[in-house]
Amino acid sequence: METDKRWTIAVLGGTGKEGKGLASRWAKAGLSVVIGSRNIDRAKEAAAEINSAKCPISVQGKDNLNAARAADIVVLSVPYSAHRETLETVKSVLQGKILVDVTVPLVPPKVTKVQMPPAGSAALEAREILGDTAEIASAFQNISFEHLQGDHEIGCDVLVTGTSKETRAVALDLVSQAGLAGWDAGPLENSMVAEGLTSILIHINKIYGANHAGIKITGVPDKNQPSREITK
Amino acid sequence: METDKRWTIAVLGGTGKEGKGLASRWAKAGLSVVIGSRNIDRAKEAAAEINSAKCPISVQGKDNLNAARAADIVVLSVPYSAHRETLETVKSVLQGKILVDVTVPLVPPKVTKVQMPPAGSAALEAREILGDTAEIASAFQNISFEHLQGDHEIGCDVLVTGTSKETRAVALDLVSQAGLAGWDAGPLENSMVAEGLTSILIHINKIYGANHAGIKITGVPDKNQPSREITK
Repeated sequence: METDKRWTIAVLGGTGKEGKGLASRWAKAGLSVVIGSRNIDRAKEAAAEINSAKCPISVQGKDNLNAARAADIVVLSVPYSAHRETLETVKSVLQGKILVDVTVPLVPPKVTKVQMPPAGSAALEAREILGDTAEIASAFQNISFEHLQGDHEIGCDVLVTGTSKETRAVALDLVSQAGLAGWDAGPLENSMVAEGLTSILIHINKIYGANHAGIKITGVPDKNQPSREITK
Repeated sequence: METDKRWTIAVLGGTGKEGKGLASRWAKAGLSVVIGSRNIDRAKEAAAEINSAKCPISVQGKDNLNAARAADIVVLSVPYSAHRETLETVKSVLQGKILVDVTVPLVPPKVTKVQMPPAGSAALEAREILGDTAEIASAFQNISFEHLQGDHEIGCDVLVTGTSKETRAVALDLVSQAGLAGWDAGPLENSMVAEGLTSILIHINKIYGANHAGIKITGVPDKNQPSREITK
């Protein structure tokens, strides 16, 4: 299925390890990517670092607001402590765009214990902040950043939840463009499972002496994928 | 590691497909099993059905209260609509026993949407009902009953959460005795992930045309299992 490559993806918090890993994979896949950060100099540094790998389209660096303004899809990859503030910063320019929330609401120091915010999950909190008409998907919570930074295949699936089937299809295409296997995991309310699973995987890493615990969906012999064409 | 086989397991709701599947697997493994039901005749019928397969120790059938009274480990496998009532029924005899809650808080008709009770999960609701000193584990939410009924290997892992490491170790042993692979998934607060995952797996079954979607934990190359010896 052909992907419309004319859309631009902003990765807010794209200077962090996870955001930079995703941005780099999308840039290498030929997508137009803008790195967003609170600090425009750090955004430009991260963009230059990715560009040194000679991507088809040059990655740009901007402050979060201008990165979101320039994009069709806005990926939010910030620590949970900056989640609300970043959304408030870019809220005015998100109209008509899709937000893909990557945030995991970890509450240090007990990061192995699931502790969801009152809204139910970080993605549901984003919906509270942006309003009920916002198009929001939630994805990528369970991939370790070390995995994202390499070019190798990743033995961990991505659960994609979202406010509509169409929003999930856009996020599933982003998963695919990043070289990962994604699953339509249902409505945005289900995001608490993918977000909470991160605490369980950290616990499993600790208990079983591993570093990159992940999950694979089993029992779907003929993975007849739902439509992933980008219609944005 | 040797398992102490002197303990007795009550399966409340053991006349249902899932409870009967678990009871049957434990009985075949040589454990002492009591089927509990609101209806003692149905409990005896289910026990007779399992006994027809010639288990090492004869399975008994009792009403829920007497089944719980006779057991060291009480497994709760009832529809969510009977969860609170069943716990209230057996609460007085649970002192000093371990409860293994198998309940998934599905809210028909939207069973593909995660809808946790106010306590945060069914297992956390059990803790509210039984009190903070209760020993509770949560497990087996993601295994389809068709899988449990056969003797074949099951391609789905079991996430085990619980109020203490020791409680989780007991539940992990039950997982192992049922012929399944289990993982210590952390504190009981994490039960919302395993419970909620069931809705996601039902959604995946529906979207991708499957019947037995499950999960496997990946990325733990040397599964150095935590202690599973039963110390009850």
